[in-house]
Amino acid sequence: MSGNPAPEQHSDRFADDPAFAVHEGGKLSVASTRPISSIEDLALTYTPGVARVSSAIAAEPELARRFTWAPRVVAVVSDGTAVLGLGSIGPAAALPVMEGKACLFAEFAGLSSVPIVLNTTDVDEIVDAVMAIAPSFGGINLEDISAPRCFEIEDRLRERLDIPVMHDDQHGTAIVVLAALRNAAKVVGREIADLRVVVSGAGAAGVACTKILLEAGVVDISVADSQGILHPGREVTGTKQWLVENTNPEGFAGTMMSALAGADVYLGVSGGSVPEAAIATMAENAIVFSLANPTPEVDPEMAARYAAVVATGRSDLPNQINNVLAFPGVFRGAIDAGATAITEEMKLAAATAIADVVGEDLRPDYIVPSPLDRRVATAVAEAVAACAREQGITR
Amino acid sequence: MSGNPAPEQHSDRFADDPAFAVHEGGKLSVASTRPISSIEDLALTYTPGVARVSSAIAAEPELARRFTWAPRVVAVVSDGTAVLGLGSIGPAAALPVMEGKACLFAEFAGLSSVPIVLNTTDVDEIVDAVMAIAPSFGGINLEDISAPRCFEIEDRLRERLDIPVMHDDQHGTAIVVLAALRNAAKVVGREIADLRVVVSGAGAAGVACTKILLEAGVVDISVADSQGILHPGREVTGTKQWLVENTNPEGFAGTMMSALAGADVYLGVSGGSVPEAAIATMAENAIVFSLANPTPEVDPEMAARYAAVVATGRSDLPNQINNVLAFPGVFRGAIDAGATAITEEMKLAAATAIADVVGEDLRPDYIVPSPLDRRVATAVAEAVAACAREQGITR
Repeated sequence: MSGNPAPEQHSDRFADDPAFAVHEGGKLSVASTRPISSIEDLALTYTPGVARVSSAIAAEPELARRFTWAPRVVAVVSDGTAVLGLGSIGPAAALPVMEGKACLFAEFAGLSSVPIVLNTTDVDEIVDAVMAIAPSFGGINLEDISAPRCFEIEDRLRERLDIPVMHDDQHGTAIVVLAALRNAAKVVGREIADLRVVVSGAGAAGVACTKILLEAGVVDISVADSQGILHPGREVTGTKQWLVENTNPEGFAGTMMSALAGADVYLGVSGGSVPEAAIATMAENAIVFSLANPTPEVDPEMAARYAAVVATGRSDLPNQINNVLAFPGVFRGAIDAGATAITEEMKLAAATAIADVVGEDLRPDYIVPSPLDRRVATAVAEAVAACAREQGITR
Repeated sequence: MSGNPAPEQHSDRFADDPAFAVHEGGKLSVASTRPISSIEDLALTYTPGVARVSSAIAAEPELARRFTWAPRVVAVVSDGTAVLGLGSIGPAAALPVMEGKACLFAEFAGLSSVPIVLNTTDVDEIVDAVMAIAPSFGGINLEDISAPRCFEIEDRLRERLDIPVMHDDQHGTAIVVLAALRNAAKVVGREIADLRVVVSGAGAAGVACTKILLEAGVVDISVADSQGILHPGREVTGTKQWLVENTNPEGFAGTMMSALAGADVYLGVSGGSVPEAAIATMAENAIVFSLANPTPEVDPEMAARYAAVVATGRSDLPNQINNVLAFPGVFRGAIDAGATAITEEMKLAAATAIADVVGEDLRPDYIVPSPLDRRVATAVAEAVAACAREQGITR
């Protein structure tokens, strides 16, 4: 029997959009890696042979790493509360995105992964559900979970699990942004430590980008949410309070636009729209990363009139900041090394590896590799695995 | 990159047992059914194209049946408390068995399935975890969960979920036993309604076999646990109380052996050992199904001296009662029909379909098809789907 049903005859209102044809019947399949064509095959893959393997693991749990698939399979977990730019659309509607991530894990990193969409948006219940199913998996990729819940969920799972856990909307984006900024700085002949950066958006991506840029040596970052620049006069809590305490050394207190005057870098991870007048006030040789998708916060054609380097999240424009450059290689490297976590150092190593793939071909319109560049996941995996081994967090 | 790591160099204490080589690196892989070789592929499988599919599902949830893989993927869920004959060995050690089931789902029914082993043995937590992840799946195959917890877990999930849920240790076994008994009765020229049956074992399999035999028209069944025949003088609760009220019309009150005298059918699903003297007391043309594995309760060679038909759970003997004859086709049929449950009628239809595959080839040593017979899953799936449609429980 075949795995997927024959496409049904629909009087088809979806026929005009090829995205629906690609999704007909779903995008994944699970296969046995062992042929079962004889009674002997059956007796080794299943009973009675499997009982000897199970007994061995029961006696010596570490053998599960060798004789089960779990250490090499990633759960792609979402509660459907912050799906792409679509908002809280629930688990069923989030599933095509999670299947898409699993397709990319398979395609770019040769990694098996399984979409797990959750019937709850309660933080405790999400943590409990992931903890309950965790022995089935070798890594947890959290996806499209709204802020600030995503921070707590990731923190609690990282604390309790000894396998790699990463919220990709935060760290995948941050890794690729750092890679892009390293190369953009090279294009304009600057050190990233000397750049003044304005981040528009204090959600999952904005917070993680800010953190990784600080770790990478950027000193002057201001972060704006919808109420303006985060500064000590704002009454905020949690992650935003952390931003108040750790950013904005110049003490900006107004709108995002006010901080943008004279800034070197604009990083948009917020949606909305930035007027030409504001971009025109940026410093010479400015860098504009405008990641809202499908409509960037800054019109890329307009931005090109003022900035030396422009990047977006769009696949039809140059310099696409696409998470697929990061997450397949990050998990592949962590899993290959038997890492018990994904550390900040491993993320920094991943960013450097992505930037280095560009190498001598660096140009203003080629600061990050193409998302189809097969060298990237390999380079990232090797860098991440090497970093994990250096840190001594491998099994 | 390849999906599985290269076999490592081990000074290998597992080299002598081919079961371990078969399990090296695990037995499953997840693949993308859509190639991603161009930016356009990426833009349809993932962003931005996937957003249009997610939006459509958000607006019209039933579209998830068409445009995601969930309706066609089965979770194989275990807490590792009753794994084969090995007892409570935990989730990691249970995983090779669950992977094996997933291999069989793929191989015999073309169905994707995912092993989910749980880090808890608490009934409430198991139900909560399965409910939380349920939107990811189109069916739940419960596996190797100890009695009586398995009864409550299955009941609660069946009540709360509108997808097929089946505890295979109960119902897979029961379906194949009924199929085998139908054909064994034919061999000896009897109607199953006229047979006196003794069931040894009141755990998951014993209870489910008893129930399906009663539903199929067997009237005279006595069930024994380790304390002897279940009868109204015994102080028992729950499922055993149900057995007291619904079996043993002749009022046996002693040991299993006492009920065996003159019985037509012995069904062993308990382990332990039945002496020759007891089998010798059975009626003429007796039927002996002794399913403990690897050591049947009744020595099959000895049984053959007294019984007209002998079946076991072993792959190296004729008449293997193997669940693989049932579960792949049962789930495939339920899923193909879009059934909202697996009903008793669907199980009976599956048993008839399995028995019918044997057809004209029926012999004392061929009462059930070979577990490798590819006709079985197709026949079972068709019968189960047709039954679901007749019952009007399809979407």
